[in-house]
Amino acid sequence: MSKSLPSRADNYSEWYNELVKRADLAENSAVRGCMIIKPYGYSIWEKMQRALDDMFKETGHTNAYFPLFIPKSFLSKEASHVEGFAKECAVVTHYRLKNDPNGGGVIVDPDAKLEEELIVRPTSETVIWSSYKNWIQSYRDLPLLINQWANVVRWEMRTRLFLRTAEFLWQEGHTAHATKKEAIEETEQMLEVYADFAENFMAMPVVKGIKTANERFAGADETYCIEALMQDGKALQAGTSHFLGQNFAKAFDVKFLSKENQLDYVWGTSWGVSTRLMGALIMAHSDDQGLVLPPKLAPIQVVIVPIYKGEEQLNAIIEKVNPLVKSLRKSGVSVKFDTSDNQSPGFKFAEYELKGVPIRLAIGNRDMENGTIELARRDTREKTSMAFDGIEQVVLDTLEDIQTKIYAKALAFRTEKTHVVNTWDEFNAKLEEGGFISAHWDGSSETEEKIKELTKATIRCIPLDAKEEAGTCILTGNPSNKRVLFARAY
Amino acid sequence: MSKSLPSRADNYSEWYNELVKRADLAENSAVRGCMIIKPYGYSIWEKMQRALDDMFKETGHTNAYFPLFIPKSFLSKEASHVEGFAKECAVVTHYRLKNDPNGGGVIVDPDAKLEEELIVRPTSETVIWSSYKNWIQSYRDLPLLINQWANVVRWEMRTRLFLRTAEFLWQEGHTAHATKKEAIEETEQMLEVYADFAENFMAMPVVKGIKTANERFAGADETYCIEALMQDGKALQAGTSHFLGQNFAKAFDVKFLSKENQLDYVWGTSWGVSTRLMGALIMAHSDDQGLVLPPKLAPIQVVIVPIYKGEEQLNAIIEKVNPLVKSLRKSGVSVKFDTSDNQSPGFKFAEYELKGVPIRLAIGNRDMENGTIELARRDTREKTSMAFDGIEQVVLDTLEDIQTKIYAKALAFRTEKTHVVNTWDEFNAKLEEGGFISAHWDGSSETEEKIKELTKATIRCIPLDAKEEAGTCILTGNPSNKRVLFARAY
Repeated sequence: MSKSLPSRADNYSEWYNELVKRADLAENSAVRGCMIIKPYGYSIWEKMQRALDDMFKETGHTNAYFPLFIPKSFLSKEASHVEGFAKECAVVTHYRLKNDPNGGGVIVDPDAKLEEELIVRPTSETVIWSSYKNWIQSYRDLPLLINQWANVVRWEMRTRLFLRTAEFLWQEGHTAHATKKEAIEETEQMLEVYADFAENFMAMPVVKGIKTANERFAGADETYCIEALMQDGKALQAGTSHFLGQNFAKAFDVKFLSKENQLDYVWGTSWGVSTRLMGALIMAHSDDQGLVLPPKLAPIQVVIVPIYKGEEQLNAIIEKVNPLVKSLRKSGVSVKFDTSDNQSPGFKFAEYELKGVPIRLAIGNRDMENGTIELARRDTREKTSMAFDGIEQVVLDTLEDIQTKIYAKALAFRTEKTHVVNTWDEFNAKLEEGGFISAHWDGSSETEEKIKELTKATIRCIPLDAKEEAGTCILTGNPSNKRVLFARAY
Repeated sequence: MSKSLPSRADNYSEWYNELVKRADLAENSAVRGCMIIKPYGYSIWEKMQRALDDMFKETGHTNAYFPLFIPKSFLSKEASHVEGFAKECAVVTHYRLKNDPNGGGVIVDPDAKLEEELIVRPTSETVIWSSYKNWIQSYRDLPLLINQWANVVRWEMRTRLFLRTAEFLWQEGHTAHATKKEAIEETEQMLEVYADFAENFMAMPVVKGIKTANERFAGADETYCIEALMQDGKALQAGTSHFLGQNFAKAFDVKFLSKENQLDYVWGTSWGVSTRLMGALIMAHSDDQGLVLPPKLAPIQVVIVPIYKGEEQLNAIIEKVNPLVKSLRKSGVSVKFDTSDNQSPGFKFAEYELKGVPIRLAIGNRDMENGTIELARRDTREKTSMAFDGIEQVVLDTLEDIQTKIYAKALAFRTEKTHVVNTWDEFNAKLEEGGFISAHWDGSSETEEKIKELTKATIRCIPLDAKEEAGTCILTGNPSNKRVLFARAY
């Protein structure tokens, strides 16, 4: 039997690392900063992908695939973009290995040096806009609404499973539009899609907002984001949607002939979420016993564990339970009926708790006699003995209830941990408690930097629903007209 | 209106290249040898992926994800493996760019050189088996049945869209087993899955067989393959399934404790199909008017084109057709009702032919009066006027019929183009006609090489169903006990 997890209270960071490993979600690989997403972790990611992909398609987007490699010269075309990514990229310089003639084993063949180095994509704006140049001539070619699912590489120095890895999986949408208005609408629409996904699938409340200039994507005019609060009181940026203005159109000379027969640069957006969402999902709901998964993303929604002595009892249980399994599956519920005999029921209970299976049903000999079955909810860890008849509907209702309740719980936590402060002292005090801090800021990058330097807190976003309100900056006392959201962040 | 395609008879190779581009399937990118898979092409690939993924899961496999990069030393651990891949791989040597202090723009930072070079995976046996070492201790951990969908890179010198590209998309299954027998059964099972997919989804007949030692995967004990015949008489390897023996287990020291408490090396398999299947699909069925897609993989299965003058006629048609669209969609058919007014019906007809939409329905004013609708099949290009009432069932039946007929057509072609020959002269004569050549071979690699040198024909496979039959090698006259399949190949 595996030893228990570190508790969140004792060591949140250790709890997270151990949970990711013990629940078989991911592990570090032999390649620095690159993770292996294990089957159980990947099956959650697949559910996320499917849900997001459906949402992208419903909003008119199609998938495509662009090259892994970006010529060095492409990256350099948009000035702030190269500035943002040059410091952390994997560079391909050669295309062949050979046997060392001096017996040093396999070495890079110096004769196979590339004329121009290739960068493993950290993001694909440059390679995609260089294609859009050929694809777009007239307003009839617009809007162009394309997404790709891909791996990207950013040479991060300090990495953590899912949260920050050198290679990660993501989707990146890249759209082109005839007007600024339409591009901004697209940027906002995709932010809504992300918020919808976070709240309704991940059961994770998010704040929608705009990044300050300092935190903007390298090459964007405006970066929209969704920000979530983790159980340790730190914020996590869960998705971004960028209004690119005409920056990439200008860098790659992408012009179109408008309805009015005018030649103009195209307007662009890009937006992405990544396997980082896995980290957010884990930290938003899980507890000291292991994962807590929202039913909509749980690879196994219901596990049924028989408790028996001898084959005869087992067979009787199987006969009783099989129709339930069948009928739950017919209702679209993913059910595992674990009749394996190499582990005790107690071991199985702990294992499925660790893996966050939302509902566990257990049925033993006494249940068989009494016509009952035990239902355990993962979120509240409540166990209830119930009539076997009618259990199917109870399971369906409970799955919905768990989805709703864990969202409500996370929302209550965030509400409790969102502090409205008006003074520098208050700011510092509340920061130590953790959570979002709603405070006035004078709007200057300098002040923002200074606050970060002093407290490690950053402006997570200027919330979209921030009200106009006169106030004074917590640091400088200069005037401010709306509150922004500060936090320490992942 | 776009000009017509080159004909297959005039220039098969040009026909293929143009078709791939004109049908918006893929195009070359600015990065040598790397392709861009365009939305329409990608939507076919997505259908392939979905069907294959379902088949992998039904046979007990789960997906996972392993790193893009492989340390150089890993690749070197299996001797024939490195020999097979070292000559064509992308090598990452640095992890940072910087501004040239001498004003030469952005350059590779010489201070950011990796201690050990990383290879962009050409295939993942090495990085996966290095993980399996930690995942496998006992027979209880076996079998391990894992697949991954990923991009891989092989630095091919001569590339062609889909058929041979430096970067391509694929799936690679990697399994580990306690016994040799079980690993061979897995290898054979996955070959069956591939053959099933090729024949029942792609409508493409394949020969199942075993590769000769010369053509084996670098690191395998046995390579199984499916081979298809293209319309120009050349063969195409459409999928491979490798029995790896204990080669990678030995290279990465992966041992397990058996039920009998014995420590032994694990047995392995790997198997893959790639975006190359897109090339096979295109070449297997398409004609001088464009793509011919099997209904099971067509992104749009039915297109409906209204022929009208003025808005009133259009509205009447829309009112008539909408219920049909709805009810076809309810039956799971993907329908496009193209009411766009910026192109003529004739242009649309040509466009949907080019894109291989299996069924086109056209409805005009006279049809409205007569209660008819015109149905055109893409495969035979037959047009039939039909009663509008009952058209839904006709469409459903016709989709099935097209799927069956294009398979039958491809099979008839292959049968006609499979030549049984017994002499060297016959061999050469038939080779010029194109097709598979079933002939005796003495079993030596030397003879195989010699035949390739003289004729450019290779042994595609030793068919699994080859009968024991005494004969003499077409080149050497040495004795042989079964026929093998020769062809010139992609």
